Amino acid sequence: MEKTLKEILNLNRKYTNYGQVASYIPELKNAKRDDLGICIIDKDNNIYKAGNCDTKFTIQSISKPIVLAMALMDNDWSYVFSKVGMEPSGDPFNSIMKLETNDSKKPSNPMINAGAIVTTSLIKGASVEEKEERMLKFFRKLANNDTLDINYEVYKSEKTTGDRNRAMAYLLKNDGFVQGNVEEILDLYFKQCSIEVDVVDLARIGINLAMYGVNIENNERLLSERVSRMVKTFMITCGMYDSSGEFAIKVGIPAKSGVGGGIMASVPNSMGIGVYGPALDKKGNSIAGVKVLEELSHRYKLNIF
Amino acid sequence: MEKTLKEILNLNRKYTNYGQVASYIPELKNAKRDDLGICIIDKDNNIYKAGNCDTKFTIQSISKPIVLAMALMDNDWSYVFSKVGMEPSGDPFNSIMKLETNDSKKPSNPMINAGAIVTTSLIKGASVEEKEERMLKFFRKLANNDTLDINYEVYKSEKTTGDRNRAMAYLLKNDGFVQGNVEEILDLYFKQCSIEVDVVDLARIGINLAMYGVNIENNERLLSERVSRMVKTFMITCGMYDSSGEFAIKVGIPAKSGVGGGIMASVPNSMGIGVYGPALDKKGNSIAGVKVLEELSHRYKLNIF
Amino acid sequence: MEKTLKEILNLNRKYTNYGQVASYIPELKNAKRDDLGICIIDKDNNIYKAGNCDTKFTIQSISKPIVLAMALMDNDWSYVFSKVGMEPSGDPFNSIMKLETNDSKKPSNPMINAGAIVTTSLIKGASVEEKEERMLKFFRKLANNDTLDINYEVYKSEKTTGDRNRAMAYLLKNDGFVQGNVEEILDLYFKQCSIEVDVVDLARIGINLAMYGVNIENNERLLSERVSRMVKTFMITCGMYDSSGEFAIKVGIPAKSGVGGGIMASVPNSMGIGVYGPALDKKGNSIAGVKVLEELSHRYKLNIF
Amino acid sequence: MEKTLKEILNLNRKYTNYGQVASYIPELKNAKRDDLGICIIDKDNNIYKAGNCDTKFTIQSISKPIVLAMALMDNDWSYVFSKVGMEPSGDPFNSIMKLETNDSKKPSNPMINAGAIVTTSLIKGASVEEKEERMLKFFRKLANNDTLDINYEVYKSEKTTGDRNRAMAYLLKNDGFVQGNVEEILDLYFKQCSIEVDVVDLARIGINLAMYGVNIENNERLLSERVSRMVKTFMITCGMYDSSGEFAIKVGIPAKSGVGGGIMASVPNSMGIGVYGPALDKKGNSIAGVKVLEELSHRYKLNIF
Repeated sequence: MEKTLKEILNLNRKYTNYGQVASYIPELKNAKRDDLGICIIDKDNNIYKAGNCDTKFTIQSISKPIVLAMALMDNDWSYVFSKVGMEPSGDPFNSIMKLETNDSKKPSNPMINAGAIVTTSLIKGASVEEKEERMLKFFRKLANNDTLDINYEVYKSEKTTGDRNRAMAYLLKNDGFVQGNVEEILDLYFKQCSIEVDVVDLARIGINLAMYGVNIENNERLLSERVSRMVKTFMITCGMYDSSGEFAIKVGIPAKSGVGGGIMASVPNSMGIGVYGPALDKKGNSIAGVKVLEELSHRYKLNIF
Repeated sequence: MEKTLKEILNLNRKYTNYGQVASYIPELKNAKRDDLGICIIDKDNNIYKAGNCDTKFTIQSISKPIVLAMALMDNDWSYVFSKVGMEPSGDPFNSIMKLETNDSKKPSNPMINAGAIVTTSLIKGASVEEKEERMLKFFRKLANNDTLDINYEVYKSEKTTGDRNRAMAYLLKNDGFVQGNVEEILDLYFKQCSIEVDVVDLARIGINLAMYGVNIENNERLLSERVSRMVKTFMITCGMYDSSGEFAIKVGIPAKSGVGGGIMASVPNSMGIGVYGPALDKKGNSIAGVKVLEELSHRYKLNIF
Repeated sequence: MEKTLKEILNLNRKYTNYGQVASYIPELKNAKRDDLGICIIDKDNNIYKAGNCDTKFTIQSISKPIVLAMALMDNDWSYVFSKVGMEPSGDPFNSIMKLETNDSKKPSNPMINAGAIVTTSLIKGASVEEKEERMLKFFRKLANNDTLDINYEVYKSEKTTGDRNRAMAYLLKNDGFVQGNVEEILDLYFKQCSIEVDVVDLARIGINLAMYGVNIENNERLLSERVSRMVKTFMITCGMYDSSGEFAIKVGIPAKSGVGGGIMASVPNSMGIGVYGPALDKKGNSIAGVKVLEELSHRYKLNIF
Repeated sequence: MEKTLKEILNLNRKYTNYGQVASYIPELKNAKRDDLGICIIDKDNNIYKAGNCDTKFTIQSISKPIVLAMALMDNDWSYVFSKVGMEPSGDPFNSIMKLETNDSKKPSNPMINAGAIVTTSLIKGASVEEKEERMLKFFRKLANNDTLDINYEVYKSEKTTGDRNRAMAYLLKNDGFVQGNVEEILDLYFKQCSIEVDVVDLARIGINLAMYGVNIENNERLLSERVSRMVKTFMITCGMYDSSGEFAIKVGIPAKSGVGGGIMASVPNSMGIGVYGPALDKKGNSIAGVKVLEELSHRYKLNIF
């Protein structure tokens, strides 16, 4: 299978030329535009890799489904969904408009920034430190990797340039969707986005979601079946920014992308996939990564519909 | 299984009290608010029924995925998607706003009215009559029911009160997303909405989509596997008006509802489901029908995620 | 004074190079981009002219304040303002969005297309012909020119390409802001836009509004003082499309422009001004015409604030 | 004239019953709902008063035209208008939406909160203290009242509850329309809103604007003629929140209202008017105050159109 993966990467590497590396902070700008890597972990724990598999990158928005899972484990579901909606928005990830035009003013879903700030605010902990510790621990569990950590340079840059997220957070506070100290919530949000991973970590997270929350390496239950299904559902309806619909049509696999260049995909009861390709399309998705997943879905009949 | 279905209907009939029968035209107003019926057809062609299974109602928006399938069979896919998008909109089904605020002005997807008017305009035929005939024939094939027909009273009422759809159609023409005579396109659109069905018809359409386009009764291929998957994908991301996201989270089955009270659901490689319950929630979905499908999904593990 | 006017035209003719002649219908395309003309009529009925004063052009949106005046004379004011608002919208003249997002769905004001379609629908008359006749008669009275007439070539082109206005009209009908036959209302609307005028006609209309509705040539009252004030108020707040605010700041005179290249301005108790310059800026205002009025306002202290 | 004023107050006091005192902070809640007072200062410096003329209230949004004047005196006009627009928005004063949907993302005008935060940020000063001092000094000059001061209780409450303004300010910073420390800018903004005045102060500010910037008591020029005209123009097009258009039609006088219950009106070359009535309509304008000004405009022919 690794031969096929290599072939797929080679076929699609050309698309990296049509994308741009994220440049809103200097740290992301340094990524190599034509890097491309993939890792697949199947339900028998076979691990297949090809391309740039050791490159570290920040998880960015791929943290959103994970923090959503935590919020759903830390709180009553009805409480969570009183603060964040379940509907795809059709708007860019950083859009503010619907916070004003929506009847409820509630963020549409937990995969856009406004909704993700809400789920971050719902993580439990007696102190800021405890929240951060619990969050990092959960990410490490899901990735089955104790060395996962925050890239503090990225975190500091995100914090400095994060005025649009800051605007959203204050609006959410004003409208009662987040409580407490806005800067502390944003701090945790910027930290979750700055966790460094590689494609193996993403594939592991993917297979753990695919197997309904049970770690196939040690049989540990990391999250409930119901929560694992909810997370994958949000990945299908809103996981790929405002081209989620197109990705669902063309690829048909629950997936979440981040502007660091990663995509984490999860084929229910079958496999987890991590892809890395930092050249992004205009919506913020890895341009070659999407093509690789489309090819993979067709060759291995992974489309869930 | 019919016993279980009856039980589920009985458990959820109370919700009909919280909904309202559609009242924008007199014909829909006459429906009985507490009617509730279901039909399931599985991949072995077993047919299970309970409740009001013989009641006829108009298909309304459930015609949208079917006409989309026709448009995809009659045209190059790239042409179809140059005229209608693939993204859930987060707005009500009859919203006009995004036709102005979207960069492309293109209707977001084929499950909202604006997008459905586009797909209707893409049905091929040398004359208005031929288009209508081809359309009706395709609906009959998919429902495996040669007696399917248009309710002309409903059609005439829809046509008379359809000024909002008329506004959309002229805007779409102005922006180049539909060509030709607007009134003729609307005429066909109002006719497709006015086709009368019962829950058995919907279940049959559902199983045909579930089995990737092959009629399990006679092995006839009605549409390609790829088109059948696309249709089910749109049903998940945009099939239940602006509570599609919530339905995907709670039920996890591709489904399409109509204001006539019907819901057509399709569990890939497994079953087709038709539900009827004319009392609607505020978004336009059968209020008890949604509850019935949620219960059914939990009991029989139908959630695809 | 005519020497000064000539000087002002010469100083500002260069701006015609930065604008574009309207091109959505062939008839408007034929205008000469560098034409520039002005006529002023003061309260003592002195008439001053310079530049292209005999060129005929279609009145287009300058018909809006005139038809508003008719609607206010033909109906109770409270009825008129139950169908069209009094607020500047901040949106382009052909925007549809606020018809959906506004609480009332009412067109914001009578100077944008949607609002003007409403005022046109409020013109009284036993038949289509009578409405047209009454309208044309009122325009002739206000311009003190019995030869004013509709350019039928322009009218036919407007009608053919008017699908965006058609969309608005059907939406307005759907929401109860216009009654009756939409195509007949649009017909009258396209006709009012196609009336041919020159700058002398516009200056005459301007001085009639400036003198609170009394024709200074024959002392005939054409409209009430109150209505004349209302019309001039709408001209200040919404007369120059979505640069009305900027025009009010820089020029400070009630004015209304049209995409035919005309601007009609009215300095209360002082003078009427007609300007013609078919090269338009991006908002749809005569690019040199605006500059000419700005210069004129500064030199003669015409700013009303 | 004071007799007439008393009469007008008495006729319109009943409208206070239809309004509500602002309640978003406790300090405003304490106002007496049926208070009503007026002061007029004419160009001969005659001062006429009636009703609750000694009641102090916070100036709130009436500070916006004054700070705009300062911004225009402290900076190049082209720089000011590169940061804030000149167009009425048609949206509520605290709307965020247009910051996203407008092509330029620039706040529409300096009379809505977003635009006023921009003008506040443009006040010059070597330190926060100097800016505050200069601002307060300018307000005292314009009101010809050295005792004018900030109500620190109101200021503190505004600061605590100001998360919506905070959201706007961070968005404005993100998009480059304000520079520097957001909290410091907001601090100054909340202070300007918290300056306490009475109707005599407002009438004095009004007559100073009416007389084109010259203090008629001592002939001191406080602002240039051009700036005084610009300020009055913004008052007509956007001074009365999203009923500015209606106020212009019905009253026809440049005016600015605040949620403290005040209205400052300025009739060019004629008079300044201060009105106080803390019961507000839904848009945020003094409900009886607007009626009083309408009556006054009709009786004394103050309509400028």
